[in-house]
Amino acid sequence: MSKSKLRWLLERDQTLPLYRQIEQQLRQRISNGEWPVGTRLPSQRKLAEQLGVNRSTVTQAIDELASWGIIAGNKGGGTRVVNNTWNRLAANTINWDRYVESGAHQPNLPAIRQINEAEYRADIIRTGTGEPGPELLPTARIRHILADASDEPFLGYEEPKGNLRLRQQIVHYVAKQGIQCSPESILIVSGALQALQLIAIGLLQRPSSIVAEAPSYIQSVRVFQSAGIGVHRVAMDAQGIKMSHLRQQLTEHQPGLLYTIPTFHNPTGTIMSNERRAELLELSSSLSLPLIEDDVYRELWLDEEPPPPLKSQDRHGNILYLGSLSKMMSPGIRVGWIIAPVPVIDRLADIKMQTDYGSSGLSQYVATRWLADGHQAQHQAWLREQLQARRDRLLAALEYHFGDIGAWNVPAGGFYIWLRLPVTVHVHRLFKLALRERILIHPGYMYDRAAAHHIRLSYSYAEMGQLEHSIQRLRQLVKQCMDV
Amino acid sequence: MSKSKLRWLLERDQTLPLYRQIEQQLRQRISNGEWPVGTRLPSQRKLAEQLGVNRSTVTQAIDELASWGIIAGNKGGGTRVVNNTWNRLAANTINWDRYVESGAHQPNLPAIRQINEAEYRADIIRTGTGEPGPELLPTARIRHILADASDEPFLGYEEPKGNLRLRQQIVHYVAKQGIQCSPESILIVSGALQALQLIAIGLLQRPSSIVAEAPSYIQSVRVFQSAGIGVHRVAMDAQGIKMSHLRQQLTEHQPGLLYTIPTFHNPTGTIMSNERRAELLELSSSLSLPLIEDDVYRELWLDEEPPPPLKSQDRHGNILYLGSLSKMMSPGIRVGWIIAPVPVIDRLADIKMQTDYGSSGLSQYVATRWLADGHQAQHQAWLREQLQARRDRLLAALEYHFGDIGAWNVPAGGFYIWLRLPVTVHVHRLFKLALRERILIHPGYMYDRAAAHHIRLSYSYAEMGQLEHSIQRLRQLVKQCMDV
Repeated sequence: MSKSKLRWLLERDQTLPLYRQIEQQLRQRISNGEWPVGTRLPSQRKLAEQLGVNRSTVTQAIDELASWGIIAGNKGGGTRVVNNTWNRLAANTINWDRYVESGAHQPNLPAIRQINEAEYRADIIRTGTGEPGPELLPTARIRHILADASDEPFLGYEEPKGNLRLRQQIVHYVAKQGIQCSPESILIVSGALQALQLIAIGLLQRPSSIVAEAPSYIQSVRVFQSAGIGVHRVAMDAQGIKMSHLRQQLTEHQPGLLYTIPTFHNPTGTIMSNERRAELLELSSSLSLPLIEDDVYRELWLDEEPPPPLKSQDRHGNILYLGSLSKMMSPGIRVGWIIAPVPVIDRLADIKMQTDYGSSGLSQYVATRWLADGHQAQHQAWLREQLQARRDRLLAALEYHFGDIGAWNVPAGGFYIWLRLPVTVHVHRLFKLALRERILIHPGYMYDRAAAHHIRLSYSYAEMGQLEHSIQRLRQLVKQCMDV
Repeated sequence: MSKSKLRWLLERDQTLPLYRQIEQQLRQRISNGEWPVGTRLPSQRKLAEQLGVNRSTVTQAIDELASWGIIAGNKGGGTRVVNNTWNRLAANTINWDRYVESGAHQPNLPAIRQINEAEYRADIIRTGTGEPGPELLPTARIRHILADASDEPFLGYEEPKGNLRLRQQIVHYVAKQGIQCSPESILIVSGALQALQLIAIGLLQRPSSIVAEAPSYIQSVRVFQSAGIGVHRVAMDAQGIKMSHLRQQLTEHQPGLLYTIPTFHNPTGTIMSNERRAELLELSSSLSLPLIEDDVYRELWLDEEPPPPLKSQDRHGNILYLGSLSKMMSPGIRVGWIIAPVPVIDRLADIKMQTDYGSSGLSQYVATRWLADGHQAQHQAWLREQLQARRDRLLAALEYHFGDIGAWNVPAGGFYIWLRLPVTVHVHRLFKLALRERILIHPGYMYDRAAAHHIRLSYSYAEMGQLEHSIQRLRQLVKQCMDV
């Protein structure tokens, strides 16, 4: 319950007292079944905060409902709906909690849910968000594309693999990166995360497992776990995956595939070295180990071009390659792609049709024009300059405020700085302290249970002045945590 | 393999002979891993047809590759890639077939895959497609909305439950249908099919089962099966679900929920009577049986308004209500919604964030404007007139050509006519005969295994002259099948 923001309009100049207005609105939510029996109400403190009224006003409303036997407090704290039968019908109510708790898909980690919620508060400073901030989005370019929407039909369903013209554009686009493919071996998806979801439910038997880097993109790991697939972790160093550890994990667990972000790794910013890439390809080929290459940050290089994709060296169809427009153009447009052997793409396209009937045709149309009209190349160059300046400012702020107590990477591309804090700092405590000051941080343990003293910073989202301010405040909070 | 259309450009005036061009292109697909070892090549007949060359030209190219030991025929017929090592590396190749066959999600039924493929052939007449045809799409209105895209941000990620303004518009929209809810109890999804997918993986334990009408929307049933959930069927009559059979199924199987399309049922067009609705609501409440009410056809009434949604009578939060813009405005925009108790919506929103990070923000923006600016109401009225005229023409054609050998419903809304053919007609044979003449029909067995003598017709998609022609041809083909 506490998750849902309450967006009620209380009318202060109405004749009905505020507490009665609140009571009425609570009552309505209960009587129309939105808050079924068993639902826990938000705390009185939270209600008061969200409604912008005194806590005593909320208490009055709650007491009123309790006197009707509609809600009741319990010992564990919190107030629950216990009855919704104003109309005196003796009805059984569905225990939705039982349903909610029994679904196969795992819930998000509490920390992620807290972050998801906090992110939509307008007043929060998001220090770790991995997407381009509002000023970095090409709004004017997209508006131009939209205003000029030609006779192209984009309101009907698309082909199972996605819009053909978009796939042709992607063929050209990835060719520049050394990947040779044809439209039949491309599937359009609603972002790289969905690609992983399709792979998890479409290509792996039960039971089976995968290997992923530690740390890694948390959502991707979660998708596999929720599909009932085990996730083993492989350690990294500055060159990328530690091959000896990988061999060990492969021998021990015989996983179905390896998930890797070789270029501008999330969250560490690491670029896998050429040597490691060659070793990994050889291993994949000699052991018949499929790889998922998540390459969504490639174009966001800042100093020099990164090594070519693993996929460009893949002569045996061992690699499932993921690309996306989320980081380069717009996360909200939800357009990404998988490049893989045709039988794999056929299978994944079939599952996508069964689960969401294809990605938005309108988004696909805009993505096609984005690539075809040369916007990507122009925007990319501009975006790089912006990100370069932002990275340098964040590095300078870190140097100034964390030079004596932290350690971090200098990213050559992507969005992320992986900041190590002193071991005496309890990061979850830091998270809570910072959130109280409206500073949202991404604790390292979200990316790797063992990363108890890291946080992920991103220079892509927050306004730079606010980000610098946050770094300064974080130093003070870190010191506070150290002193305890 | 046979599924992927080949879209190769052969240059007829090039100096390289055609068969060498074909050989090169085949070779490229094999050497870059798109067609890994084990891939079955399209048949020579099909290749020739798709490339627009003589079969002997294809044979020449195939022989060339076979002489290199790259491909080989097998006894079962068909040619497979057996080697891809021009470069003489001794590499192991991944057996993708094993992966493709072992995923948890079930493949689509072959008939559905055939239909999915055939639908994207430009020359096909689609007699059963359940979406508005190109002339029924509000392309001008949408272009107007796009051209006028205001300062609204639509390129970033949306809230977990979807764009708030869209959810507020939906609150107003469904209020007209008698449903009272607030934005917190709405989740924006990429169409009703995705809603079912989220419910299947988010709310039902394993093992468990559901009950669905027989016949029913095939994809919805499939989604549950693929998630490992059993599907029991309940018989229908002209009033909707047969309550005695439902009680029997509930007692016997104790399913987790009931999936129903009470208004303009797919594929039979049935409207559940008021009496049955009351009975069903009472049953749901007395047995604590959750219902999924799929109500995507509601606004497409042709003669008079249908009874109000079950959800409008739901005082206990027993109903998960599904709506969508796919049938009314655009299937390609992929915008639908679930209205349900808040704890359920919280849970499903969390899973949606984990699997695709929310629906296209651009699509959500257009949907918001569509509802807010009054387009929906205006377009609906126009669409009704169009569909009415189309329905009447299709009914007249059926009367003329099938009056003596078929039986069908007269739909009061929605898209569908459920045509019963003589029992001596083998519908799968009819499907194949019709497809040869570029007429695509939807066999009844897709919607219900027992419906061996039905086909689903739709007056929403095909151009009416072509649809009438198809009905005439289908009569002849049916007669042909009967004579055998």
